[in-house]
Amino acid sequence: MRIALDAMGSDRAPAVEVEGAVGALRELDGDFVVVLVGDRERVEAELARHPDAPRDRIEIVHAPARIEMGEPPAQAIRRKQDSSIVIGLNLHKRGEVDAFISAGSTGAVMAGSVMLLGVLPGVHRPAIGAVLPTSGGYTLLVDAGANVDTRPHHLAQFGHLGTIYAQDLMGVERPRVGLLNIGEEPEKGDERALEAHRLLAGYEGLNFVGNVEGRDVIHHRCDVLVADGFVANVLLKFYESVAAYFVGLVTRAVEESGAQLDTRRIFKGLDYTEYGGAPLLGVNGVTIICHGGSPPRAIRNAIRVASQAVERSMVSHIERQIARRAEAATSQ
Amino acid sequence: MRIALDAMGSDRAPAVEVEGAVGALRELDGDFVVVLVGDRERVEAELARHPDAPRDRIEIVHAPARIEMGEPPAQAIRRKQDSSIVIGLNLHKRGEVDAFISAGSTGAVMAGSVMLLGVLPGVHRPAIGAVLPTSGGYTLLVDAGANVDTRPHHLAQFGHLGTIYAQDLMGVERPRVGLLNIGEEPEKGDERALEAHRLLAGYEGLNFVGNVEGRDVIHHRCDVLVADGFVANVLLKFYESVAAYFVGLVTRAVEESGAQLDTRRIFKGLDYTEYGGAPLLGVNGVTIICHGGSPPRAIRNAIRVASQAVERSMVSHIERQIARRAEAATSQ
Repeated sequence: MRIALDAMGSDRAPAVEVEGAVGALRELDGDFVVVLVGDRERVEAELARHPDAPRDRIEIVHAPARIEMGEPPAQAIRRKQDSSIVIGLNLHKRGEVDAFISAGSTGAVMAGSVMLLGVLPGVHRPAIGAVLPTSGGYTLLVDAGANVDTRPHHLAQFGHLGTIYAQDLMGVERPRVGLLNIGEEPEKGDERALEAHRLLAGYEGLNFVGNVEGRDVIHHRCDVLVADGFVANVLLKFYESVAAYFVGLVTRAVEESGAQLDTRRIFKGLDYTEYGGAPLLGVNGVTIICHGGSPPRAIRNAIRVASQAVERSMVSHIERQIARRAEAATSQ
Repeated sequence: MRIALDAMGSDRAPAVEVEGAVGALRELDGDFVVVLVGDRERVEAELARHPDAPRDRIEIVHAPARIEMGEPPAQAIRRKQDSSIVIGLNLHKRGEVDAFISAGSTGAVMAGSVMLLGVLPGVHRPAIGAVLPTSGGYTLLVDAGANVDTRPHHLAQFGHLGTIYAQDLMGVERPRVGLLNIGEEPEKGDERALEAHRLLAGYEGLNFVGNVEGRDVIHHRCDVLVADGFVANVLLKFYESVAAYFVGLVTRAVEESGAQLDTRRIFKGLDYTEYGGAPLLGVNGVTIICHGGSPPRAIRNAIRVASQAVERSMVSHIERQIARRAEAATSQ
């Protein structure tokens, strides 16, 4: 298996990417190769700082350009053919690698994946699945920001895409699908949520458990949480920042008091980097999107997620199940 | 000044309401009377447990019925004329009290306020303002759940309503108004946010500071945070639950370690009950909505908020400013 990693994506690229890749190669099981896509000289210089790196499992594909965060995604993909994102995705498109990971511009990675890999037949809109740590385990939030102005049938399909991911990668046999909403009752919500609830309730094969309120998210009421990208983006970013803020408050108080307390242990279960990248579900390939501020640990975990998605044939599961459902819908 | 308090609203009514009222009368400045609206016998029984209560500043108005959480709001207001919410709001409508506070069904309090007190001229939709504790002070989130399927011009006016509240009750001379969105740049967001951004940027007299992302909310980037009720409801409920969850994690860890650390002090600034009720902005009266799970302290603070809103003539400020703006818009 060959996994391409955009070496120029994160805020501290390529140092973080190289360290994450070396960590993955040393610590994860499996016979995979990491293809670092980026400025060859800078990547080599960074690799030189890891004399223990298994060089026979690392390749470098030179990409001189980088797509910056502020650039209009689709335009950047078209114009910057020599960027690490375009070159990495083209490797995947041509079958030279099995997956692509980037901590660069989320918009550009999404646009590039759609334009270069394509969208699987029957998929309305590819969606990002972000893994939220909760009190009882992980919940996959779909769509975590790829789409705004979604329509109810998009949301219903997000529930299906999330279900396949949870089965293949989170080890949940019959994932509970919830709809993020402002009340528990089916008649609560805005127009979109009301109709999405109706569609999800009638979606054959899904284990729909109904509406999930903001207050329930932390309590692991579902394995897959369906939401419009706008709401999900606000929730996700708020969660990350509030968690960091709380940890800071507690750490300071513990330091000041001189108490013997390992604050990292208290919040261990809530560590985002434990889980790593977010899959872009519904494209014809394995694309994993990482936070721009990812530490090496998150990159390493993204490599793990990518390798599992390949190993467990997630893309063909999505392809087959969505096609089957589209057929069933047509024959009705 | 006379403040009506729905004595039957909260999950632990009337005990919480009576204790909150007694606390307010003893601890807050000002020469106000609390009118407890509810089942006279039960309220009297509860009052008997507070022999120190200043009975000359407490009145009871009998209301035999209670509107339950699940009841359809408008219908419940029409049918249950003898409920504490309808009787309390009618006291306010007739000018027999200056404000109304309830920890009962938010939907019923809103519907009742609109139906009985009426909406101020020029106000598109009344909105709930909820006070969020942040790292640098309080942010008023408008609309915190009164309205879904809002349109951009509703959001723009929420910024105006919130500004008046922040000036009158939060002591901010020139409140910074932010729009909850998924990116900092004006061109980010869904259709509603894009247009709301444009309207807010051109809204004369507002101190619009632009988009505020989920990650910025905790960092007090603005005094008034404008959002559709759906997103705000999710954010608010998530915030409450995640705060409680974190506090629980830390408290348990501290107990287990035997460390000498006052966890309540660490999180003091984040205590919701410090601030109390949420105003319903834009109706012709002072309506303060409390959480169903409010402790007595939150009720006491809601009484403080209500008395300040009356004292500082919040309603006539809203009336005058919204009318002036409507005039200016017409004459353009």
